[in-house]
Amino acid sequence: MASTKMILDLDTGVDDALALALAICDPRVDLIGVIASYGNTLVETSAQNTLNLLHLLGENDVPVYLGESHSSTTDHFDVMPISKAIHGEHGVGNLSLATATRKIEQTSGIQFLIDMAHKYQDELIYVPTGPLTNMAKALKIDPEISHLIGNTTLMGGALTVPGNVTPFTEANINQDPEAADLVFTTQENLTMVGLDVTLRTLLTKKDTQQWRELGTQAGTAYADLMDFYIEAYDRLDIDHRGAALHDPLAVAVAIDPSYVVTIPLNMRVTYDKDTKDYGRTIGDRERLLEPTTTNVAVSVNAKRFVRDFMDFMIAVLKA
Amino acid sequence: MASTKMILDLDTGVDDALALALAICDPRVDLIGVIASYGNTLVETSAQNTLNLLHLLGENDVPVYLGESHSSTTDHFDVMPISKAIHGEHGVGNLSLATATRKIEQTSGIQFLIDMAHKYQDELIYVPTGPLTNMAKALKIDPEISHLIGNTTLMGGALTVPGNVTPFTEANINQDPEAADLVFTTQENLTMVGLDVTLRTLLTKKDTQQWRELGTQAGTAYADLMDFYIEAYDRLDIDHRGAALHDPLAVAVAIDPSYVVTIPLNMRVTYDKDTKDYGRTIGDRERLLEPTTTNVAVSVNAKRFVRDFMDFMIAVLKA
Repeated sequence: MASTKMILDLDTGVDDALALALAICDPRVDLIGVIASYGNTLVETSAQNTLNLLHLLGENDVPVYLGESHSSTTDHFDVMPISKAIHGEHGVGNLSLATATRKIEQTSGIQFLIDMAHKYQDELIYVPTGPLTNMAKALKIDPEISHLIGNTTLMGGALTVPGNVTPFTEANINQDPEAADLVFTTQENLTMVGLDVTLRTLLTKKDTQQWRELGTQAGTAYADLMDFYIEAYDRLDIDHRGAALHDPLAVAVAIDPSYVVTIPLNMRVTYDKDTKDYGRTIGDRERLLEPTTTNVAVSVNAKRFVRDFMDFMIAVLKA
Repeated sequence: MASTKMILDLDTGVDDALALALAICDPRVDLIGVIASYGNTLVETSAQNTLNLLHLLGENDVPVYLGESHSSTTDHFDVMPISKAIHGEHGVGNLSLATATRKIEQTSGIQFLIDMAHKYQDELIYVPTGPLTNMAKALKIDPEISHLIGNTTLMGGALTVPGNVTPFTEANINQDPEAADLVFTTQENLTMVGLDVTLRTLLTKKDTQQWRELGTQAGTAYADLMDFYIEAYDRLDIDHRGAALHDPLAVAVAIDPSYVVTIPLNMRVTYDKDTKDYGRTIGDRERLLEPTTTNVAVSVNAKRFVRDFMDFMIAVLKA
């Protein structure tokens, strides 16, 4: 068995579904659990989507835990209309997935993350692809995890390119900038995989056609799922050339950092509602001369990543 | 004689004065002329400051040309109070410099840049350390220079850190974002040396004391000049540890790019007055997948640069 233990923190979500498939089929990692987050969907929907996708992929051994249902500064969360437009009414592109037999775990996702940080320490890779609310809560309960977890590779933020919610903020960060700021300013061995690189990794219907042609249930479902997302990208003028592989790129980089070029930079997230740049991921002026804790991906070997991603996906979808 | 020809475009300015001294004493470059810009001072003051500093340094062979007196979108320029606070009433830290015997050239700085671009082509390095108004005007008159000039290394912008005028914009870019956008979107072989790196290169009074102890007129003048700037940095809460070597770093990088780590990125400058991020230097979403024309410095070997800078300065100031 692979010695690297991975925990995904997903707000499933179309590209989260791709990230999940990628984590399952890469033999270099052992997916020990998935924490659900609110974000692209409600947290319960996200958890159930994840269970159903795992079931579809024949992986009923992976436990799924509930994370927080809303941001650290609110008491309620409603899915944004733009999220529904991109990910479908319930996060999986209006697909009807068979309900998994496995149920959501009783332990909270926050506690699971803390327990695994202590148990596996350096061997643990944590990959949040939604808001950073779960990680921030875990850090507040047990600050020790900031230096226990081997590596945290998050999908979120935008450093060298404009955001996708405002010119300053990216969707995951925008959900809970306070939580994100806590993570960026305290978590060690943090890698940011943001719009800087994910917008350069595009998948097209020519690619998904290969999944469809496998003739399997999973191949058809994933092709339908991703085509919904590609069509949304086109319809909403996000990109007419294809749809960005945000979350799977984070999983790939967590496993093999050589897909990207990173720069070391201590960062913060602005969260003062009165400022113009709410939710901006930017260098921390106060820590500019200090040793760095974060690496930010700024360029990507997109061709190699998309090729490898396709190989892994075809392997998992044809099974 | 060195084969690399350098043109400086200065709004002199304390750190411009340092950049000038550095360009003079580095044997690898031949400073063929200085174009004056408005910015830290009025354009005429900038030109006269440059001539007087060249005279102080015993370099009466370098011609100084007038550039534009205001931005590309205004018909007038007043020096900002903050510029006077940092650079002194007339740009050289309230120092009284002896007036040079050499006069300002009759040819315009814009025409000089265009002529030299055609004459020296690949051998020409252009280093603007103020607003990009002069370069933009030259590009409008003769678009061919965009691929003629060997390398343009500019001091300006802020990509991975906040700006110093607003959270989005850096002072040089802020003077004329339209001009800066034209430069970033059309000029080839462009290197941006912005706040990302310059804020990490600090000089202290302990350093300037070494210039003072040389006992020369130039050593004393430059120590007084830089101490004014260091005190302004302290008084204005910009940095209490020392003052940033903005403009000299650009000259050093133009000569030896190995002082910095750069990332390739096509950039633009936002200049819509109605948007929040006026004057922001940021990745150009429209050209994210295209071959890159700009390299952005994102980290710097500050120790090596400051050491080399001090060595060069002591050599030029003791003569």
